[in-house]
Amino acid sequence: MSTSINKVVLAYSGGLDTSVILKWLQETYGCEVVTFTADIGQGEELEPAREKAKALGVKEIYIDDLREEFVRDFVFPMFRANTTYEGEYLLGTSIARPLIAKRLIEIAEETGADAVSHGATGKGNDQVRFELGAYALKPDIKIIAPWREWDLNSREKLLAYAEAHGIPVEMKRGKASPYSMDANLLHISYEGGILEDPWAEPEEDMWRWTVAPEKAPDRPRYLELTFERGDAVAIDGQPLSPARLLEQLNRIGSEHGVGRLDLVENRYVGMKSRGCYETPGGTILLKAHRAIESITLDREVAHLKDELMPRYATLIYNGYWWSPERKMLQEMIDASQAGVNGVVRLKLYKGNVTVVGRKSENSLFDPTIATFEDDAGAYDQKDAEGFIKLNALRLRIAARKGQLKF
Amino acid sequence: MSTSINKVVLAYSGGLDTSVILKWLQETYGCEVVTFTADIGQGEELEPAREKAKALGVKEIYIDDLREEFVRDFVFPMFRANTTYEGEYLLGTSIARPLIAKRLIEIAEETGADAVSHGATGKGNDQVRFELGAYALKPDIKIIAPWREWDLNSREKLLAYAEAHGIPVEMKRGKASPYSMDANLLHISYEGGILEDPWAEPEEDMWRWTVAPEKAPDRPRYLELTFERGDAVAIDGQPLSPARLLEQLNRIGSEHGVGRLDLVENRYVGMKSRGCYETPGGTILLKAHRAIESITLDREVAHLKDELMPRYATLIYNGYWWSPERKMLQEMIDASQAGVNGVVRLKLYKGNVTVVGRKSENSLFDPTIATFEDDAGAYDQKDAEGFIKLNALRLRIAARKGQLKF
Amino acid sequence: MSTSINKVVLAYSGGLDTSVILKWLQETYGCEVVTFTADIGQGEELEPAREKAKALGVKEIYIDDLREEFVRDFVFPMFRANTTYEGEYLLGTSIARPLIAKRLIEIAEETGADAVSHGATGKGNDQVRFELGAYALKPDIKIIAPWREWDLNSREKLLAYAEAHGIPVEMKRGKASPYSMDANLLHISYEGGILEDPWAEPEEDMWRWTVAPEKAPDRPRYLELTFERGDAVAIDGQPLSPARLLEQLNRIGSEHGVGRLDLVENRYVGMKSRGCYETPGGTILLKAHRAIESITLDREVAHLKDELMPRYATLIYNGYWWSPERKMLQEMIDASQAGVNGVVRLKLYKGNVTVVGRKSENSLFDPTIATFEDDAGAYDQKDAEGFIKLNALRLRIAARKGQLKF
Amino acid sequence: MSTSINKVVLAYSGGLDTSVILKWLQETYGCEVVTFTADIGQGEELEPAREKAKALGVKEIYIDDLREEFVRDFVFPMFRANTTYEGEYLLGTSIARPLIAKRLIEIAEETGADAVSHGATGKGNDQVRFELGAYALKPDIKIIAPWREWDLNSREKLLAYAEAHGIPVEMKRGKASPYSMDANLLHISYEGGILEDPWAEPEEDMWRWTVAPEKAPDRPRYLELTFERGDAVAIDGQPLSPARLLEQLNRIGSEHGVGRLDLVENRYVGMKSRGCYETPGGTILLKAHRAIESITLDREVAHLKDELMPRYATLIYNGYWWSPERKMLQEMIDASQAGVNGVVRLKLYKGNVTVVGRKSENSLFDPTIATFEDDAGAYDQKDAEGFIKLNALRLRIAARKGQLKF
Repeated sequence: MSTSINKVVLAYSGGLDTSVILKWLQETYGCEVVTFTADIGQGEELEPAREKAKALGVKEIYIDDLREEFVRDFVFPMFRANTTYEGEYLLGTSIARPLIAKRLIEIAEETGADAVSHGATGKGNDQVRFELGAYALKPDIKIIAPWREWDLNSREKLLAYAEAHGIPVEMKRGKASPYSMDANLLHISYEGGILEDPWAEPEEDMWRWTVAPEKAPDRPRYLELTFERGDAVAIDGQPLSPARLLEQLNRIGSEHGVGRLDLVENRYVGMKSRGCYETPGGTILLKAHRAIESITLDREVAHLKDELMPRYATLIYNGYWWSPERKMLQEMIDASQAGVNGVVRLKLYKGNVTVVGRKSENSLFDPTIATFEDDAGAYDQKDAEGFIKLNALRLRIAARKGQLKF
Repeated sequence: MSTSINKVVLAYSGGLDTSVILKWLQETYGCEVVTFTADIGQGEELEPAREKAKALGVKEIYIDDLREEFVRDFVFPMFRANTTYEGEYLLGTSIARPLIAKRLIEIAEETGADAVSHGATGKGNDQVRFELGAYALKPDIKIIAPWREWDLNSREKLLAYAEAHGIPVEMKRGKASPYSMDANLLHISYEGGILEDPWAEPEEDMWRWTVAPEKAPDRPRYLELTFERGDAVAIDGQPLSPARLLEQLNRIGSEHGVGRLDLVENRYVGMKSRGCYETPGGTILLKAHRAIESITLDREVAHLKDELMPRYATLIYNGYWWSPERKMLQEMIDASQAGVNGVVRLKLYKGNVTVVGRKSENSLFDPTIATFEDDAGAYDQKDAEGFIKLNALRLRIAARKGQLKF
Repeated sequence: MSTSINKVVLAYSGGLDTSVILKWLQETYGCEVVTFTADIGQGEELEPAREKAKALGVKEIYIDDLREEFVRDFVFPMFRANTTYEGEYLLGTSIARPLIAKRLIEIAEETGADAVSHGATGKGNDQVRFELGAYALKPDIKIIAPWREWDLNSREKLLAYAEAHGIPVEMKRGKASPYSMDANLLHISYEGGILEDPWAEPEEDMWRWTVAPEKAPDRPRYLELTFERGDAVAIDGQPLSPARLLEQLNRIGSEHGVGRLDLVENRYVGMKSRGCYETPGGTILLKAHRAIESITLDREVAHLKDELMPRYATLIYNGYWWSPERKMLQEMIDASQAGVNGVVRLKLYKGNVTVVGRKSENSLFDPTIATFEDDAGAYDQKDAEGFIKLNALRLRIAARKGQLKF
Repeated sequence: MSTSINKVVLAYSGGLDTSVILKWLQETYGCEVVTFTADIGQGEELEPAREKAKALGVKEIYIDDLREEFVRDFVFPMFRANTTYEGEYLLGTSIARPLIAKRLIEIAEETGADAVSHGATGKGNDQVRFELGAYALKPDIKIIAPWREWDLNSREKLLAYAEAHGIPVEMKRGKASPYSMDANLLHISYEGGILEDPWAEPEEDMWRWTVAPEKAPDRPRYLELTFERGDAVAIDGQPLSPARLLEQLNRIGSEHGVGRLDLVENRYVGMKSRGCYETPGGTILLKAHRAIESITLDREVAHLKDELMPRYATLIYNGYWWSPERKMLQEMIDASQAGVNGVVRLKLYKGNVTVVGRKSENSLFDPTIATFEDDAGAYDQKDAEGFIKLNALRLRIAARKGQLKF
C-alpha cells in the first residue's frame, strides 16, 4: 500500500507484538506514531507502556482509564438483552473492541492523524471489529493492519526484528503462556495451544481468574443484586459504579469457581475456533438479569427479546456495534427495561449460580390472580374453555378437511 | 354443558383427584368411563390404578408403557432444537402432554368413546395442551374438563365428595407434599406452597430426584455421550434405547446434583407462575447436543436454529405440538441434523455440567485452516481486507453523508 | 352476567344495530347509557346520531372529530413500517379500533361509567380489538358485548325488537347493501353476500369509493409526495395536515382506480374470511414510503424492518395496539425514520401506482461510488475477491469434508 | 495471480465482453478455454456463440438448453415462498446464477478443467453469486474474474483489445442500448444510463418486453392458473411444463402491460443501485400463488413463511442458493406446500393483476363455520369472551400495577 501516511494512532499494549508494530510503522511508513493504551480492566500496569513508547520515540502518548465507560456504555447495554453468542459465549472480547475503535478515532481527530493501526491478526474477528468501527466513525480514515501486510509471519521473524531494532523482548512477566489470551473487566479468554484439539480438555493451570470448582469454598455464598432499569447498581444493598460492581462480582465469582466456559464457536471470517473463557461476574449478571426480568417483563416483550437476541449477539460478535441496525435494536431493548427494577438473590457454590429469590416494586407476578377481585375476578376458569376453543378452531377446521396429517 | 355423552376416556392416574373425577363423570354424565393410565417414567406403580378403576366399576382399562415412545418421538425431537422456554425451562411437563392427548384420542377411537376428560385445572397450561392436541387429532371430540365445570373447587369439598362416594383417600404414599408435582422421564416439577412467594428459597427437602450439589460426590464423573443424527444413542460407548439412555442420564445426573432450576415463567393463559424443576438427564443432554453441533453444524444453520428456537419452544409450551407450524419447523430442524454425529465428553461435578471434549467424523473444525492447501490456500489473510472493506462500505457511505449518528 | 352496571359508554353509530343495542342496554342492565360517536372519516353525517340518541333518552352524548388524531397517531405510525397483513391487507379496519377503544375509556373516566359496550359481533376480529384495548387502558372496566349475550341473533329479531321499542328502522339511506361494510379515512371494506364464495368475482357496483380502472382517465396523473421522518407531509409541494393529506390521496387515487383488493384472510378468532377493500390513499402511501426508504435507509435496517413487519402487522390485526410489545416495536420503527425525508414522484394510471423518481437530502444512493474519492477509493474492485473468499470459506470447508450435499 | 491454470470453463454469451475475456484468458493464462453457453430463456440465438467460439480456437463447446431445469428447480421453488427482495424485486437475475454456477462446475468436472471464469464485474452481485456457488459445489476450483484482474477497465480499452486481437465488434444486433441488461425466462433487467439518477423516469423505449399499460388492450384478459403442491401446472386448464407455462404467462402478461418495476435496491457488496425490471409472468405467478395459499394454508404456517421470506430472499439475492441454510429453509417451505392445490382466477388489465376467484379441494375456507355442526357448533360466540379475557390477562395485570404506560 503506497498511500502516504503522516501520522498513525496505534492501539498499543506495551507488549512485544505492538512494540514491533510501532517500530515497523515508523520504518515502513516513515510516519509519526501516536500510541493509545487503555485500561479496560485487563489487570496490567499501563505505565510501562508509556516508558516503552517514549523509548521508541513516540511523542504523543495516550493512556486512558476506560473502565467505567466500558462497563456503563458497552457491557451493561449488552446485558440488557441477555446476550449470548451461539447459546453460551458472553462476548467478553467482542464488546471491548468498539470502545477501542472509538478512542482510536477520537485520538486520530485530536492529533490530526490520518490513519489508525492495530495488532489483530488477519484470521480473527478482532480486525473486523476494530476496522468496521473505525470506518463507521470516520469513513475516510486509513487503516494499517500490519499482520495482513508484513512478512513477519512467525514468532522467530518477530523476535529477530525486535532484536535487530533494539526492542526489549522480556516484556511479558512470568513464563510464556502457550495460549493466546485477551482480558478485560468482563472476561479473560484463551485460544491456541492444546485447545486446537477440540477433544482435549484444557489443563487446570490454564485458568487464571477463577479457582476450580473443586477448590472453591465448601460453603455457598448468598448475594443480592439490585437492578435499576435493567442495570445492576448494588451488591448486597451497597451501591457501586458499573466498573466497581463488575470488579466485585468478578472477585466473588472467581472465589466460587463461577464462569468457566469451553466452546467451539463460529468466527465471522468463516472458520470454527475453540475458545476458553472465564467470565465470573458476567455469568452472575446474566442469571440475575434474566431473573429480575422474569417478574417484571411482559411475556410477549420477553419473548420478542429472546427471538431477536441471537441476531443482536451476532451483530456484536461480528463487529457491528457502530452500525445503525445495532443501534435500532438497542433502542428497542432499552425501551423494554424501564420497569426492570428490583432485587435478585443468588447462591454461588462451587461453580453454580442459582437464583433463589427475586422481588420488585414493578413485579407482574401475582399469586392471588385466582381471586383477583371480590366479584367475578379477572380470571374466571370458565374463560379457559373459550380461549382453548378459539385457539383450536383453525386446527379443527383443518383436521375436519383432512388437511392436518401427522 | 348438556350434551349427551355415551362414553368418555379419562386420563387416570389412580390418585385422589382423578378418582373423584371418574366418579363425578359417571354421576354427572351417566356415561361409561374408560380409564387410560400411562407409564411415561413418572416413577409410580400403575397396577394400583387398575385395581382402583375396577373398584369404581370401569370395564375398559388401558395401562400403557409409553416410555420409549415418549423419549424417541417427543423428547428427542425437541432436544434437536436445543429447546428452552424463556431461556431456561426444559419443557419437561409440556412435552409429555401431546403424547397423552394422542393416546386419549386413539383409545377413544378404539372404544367408540365420544369424549375425553382430564384432571388439569382451569388456570394452568396443561388443559390447553391436552385439549389443543385432542381437537387437532379428532376435531369433533367432546372434551370434559371437570375442574372448569364442577363446584368441587377446594380440597375440603373434594375430600367430602370422595368420602360420600366411598373413594379411598389415603392414596398418596408418605406424607402429603405441600407442592403440586408432575413427573415423567424428563423431569419432576414443583409448584405452589411457599414457591408462591418468588423471594422465598425452596426448602432442601422439596427436591426429590437430585442430591444437593453440597452432598454430591467430591470427585467428578466423566461421561461420553454419542450422537447420531442429533440424538443421543450411547453412554460411554454403550448403546441404549432412548428411554434407557435418558433414565441412565437421570441417575448419573441426580447423583451429581445436576439439573435443578428455580424459575418464574409466563403461562399461556396469561399469568406468571413460579416453578421448580429437576431435569438431570435433560440438562446434560442439552449441553452435550450444543457441543456436538458446535463442531458439526454450519454457522448459518446454527444461527437460524437459534433464532427460531424461542418460537418453537413457545409452540410446545403453549400446547401446539400437533399443529402444522410445529411440524413445519420440525422438518427444518430435523433436516439440519443429518451430520450431527459424534461424541461429546462431559464432566459432572456438584451441579456443574462441563463440556471438555467433542469429536466427530463430520467435524467442520479444522485447526489447519491457515494453510489449507499448499498453494494459494483457502484462507489468505489478505482476503480479510476486502471482506472488511465491502462489509464496511454501507457504513462509510452513510457516515460520509452524515447519516450515521451515535 | 349479573354484575350490576350503573353507566355504560356505547360506541354508537346512529344506525339500527347500535340503536337497538342502546335500548337493550337500558332495558337489560337498567343503566344509564352514554353515547360516543366518532368521525374517523367514514363519510357519514354525525348530527343525526345526536338526535337519535336524544330520542332514546341519552343525556350524555359525545360526538368527536377524531380524523387528525386517527391519521397522525395511528395510520402514520403504522405506515412507517410498510405494514401489510398477509402480504396485502393494509389494515384499514384494524387500525381504527384502538382509537375507538381509547376514547371509550377516556369518556368512561370522564363520565364515571363503569362499563363500555360495542356493536361488534362474536365471530369477528373487532370485538377482540375493542376489548383488548379497553382492558389494557382500564383493566377493571366492564365490557358488554350484546352480540355475544342477547338472543337477537337474526335480522328479523332485531327488526322486531326495534319496532316493539319504537326505534326508527329506515336509518340507512339508499337501498340496503348486501355487504357488511366498514369505512374510515383509510379504507372502506366489504364482507358477506356473494363474497362468501371465494370463487365469485365481486360485482362492479359493490365498490363505492374508486372508479373501475376501466373507467379511470386515459391520461396518467403524476404526483409528488414529500416525506419528513417517515410521514407524508405534502402533496405536490403543498403542505397538508395528516387527515387532509390522506383525504386528498384518497380523492386522487379513487379517480384513477387505485387501491382495490380482494382477499381471503385469516381471522384471529380462527377462521378464514373473504374481504374486499378500497384503500386508494393508503396504496399510494405504501408505495411511496417504500420508495423514499429505498434511498434513505441503511440496508440492514431496512431488512430488519422487513423481517419484523409481519409480526407487527399481526399485532395490529389481532388487536394488540395497546400492548407493550407493539410499543416496543414502534420505538424501533420510529427510531429508523429520522433520515426518511425527501420526495417521491409517482404515476397513477388506471389502477397502477408506479414510482418514477425519488430524491432526498439524506440519500445514501451514490452513483459515483466507483471512484468515491480521487485516491484509493472506498470501493476497490479487488476487495470483492476477499469478500467472496471469506464468505465462501465455511461453504468450502463443509464441501471439502463432504458435508455439503445437494 | 500466478497460479498455473491448464483449462478454464468460461460462461460465454458470444457477445463482445466474453469474447474478449476468452481471448484474454488464452493469452494471460496460456490455457485452454472451454465455453459454456446456456439457453435460460434470454431470447437470443445460441448458434452464433458456437461459431465465435470456434473462430477463437475453442475445442470444447457446450451449448445447453436449461430452460426447463431453470424454471422447475430454481424459479418454482423460489416462488413457493412468495419471494421478493426488499418488498418488490422478484429476483429474476439472482435466481439464474446458481444454475449457471452448477453447470460451470459440472462441465469443469467433465472436461477436467481446474478453473472457471465469468464476465461479471467487480462491483456487482453476480460475481458473488457465481463464485459462492462454484466454491460450494467444488471447493478447490480456481476462479478467474477478469474484470477484477485486468486493466481493460473502459469500453475504449475493450474495443481496442478486440480490434487488436481480431475479435469482431458488431456482435450486438440493433443499436447499442445505453443500459446494461440481463434477461432470462423470468425477467429482463436494466441498469445504468439515466437510471443512475433515481429521480429520472425511464424512457418508454427502454422497456423491451411489455407494452406500456397505456397501450395495452382495452379489454381485460381473464386467466385461470392451476396449482399443484405450490407450483403452477396449467393455464386455463391446459397442462404445461414449467418453462412453457412461464413463457406463456410472460406472453400474456406482456400484452397487458404487466410486471414493470422501477427500484432502488441494496447490493450485497454494499452500495445502493437503481434497477428496472420486467417480470410479467412472475408478477402474475406471485399474485396467484398468494391467492391459492390464502385458502389452503394454515394461518400460522402462512405467517411463519411471511416472517422468514425476507431472509430467504436475501439468501438468494446474496448468492447463497447453494448454502445449507437456504436448503434448510427450502425443506420447510416445501413441506408447507403439500396442500397448496387448486385454481386461481385472475384478471389482467393495463398493468393490473387482480385476483377474482380461488378454489381448491384442500380449501380451509368454510363460510358455514358459524353453524359448523348441528349441535353446539365448533364456534360458539360465547367462546370469544374467554378467548379475549385470557388474552387480555397479562395486559390487565400490568395495567393494574401501573406498568403499562402509553
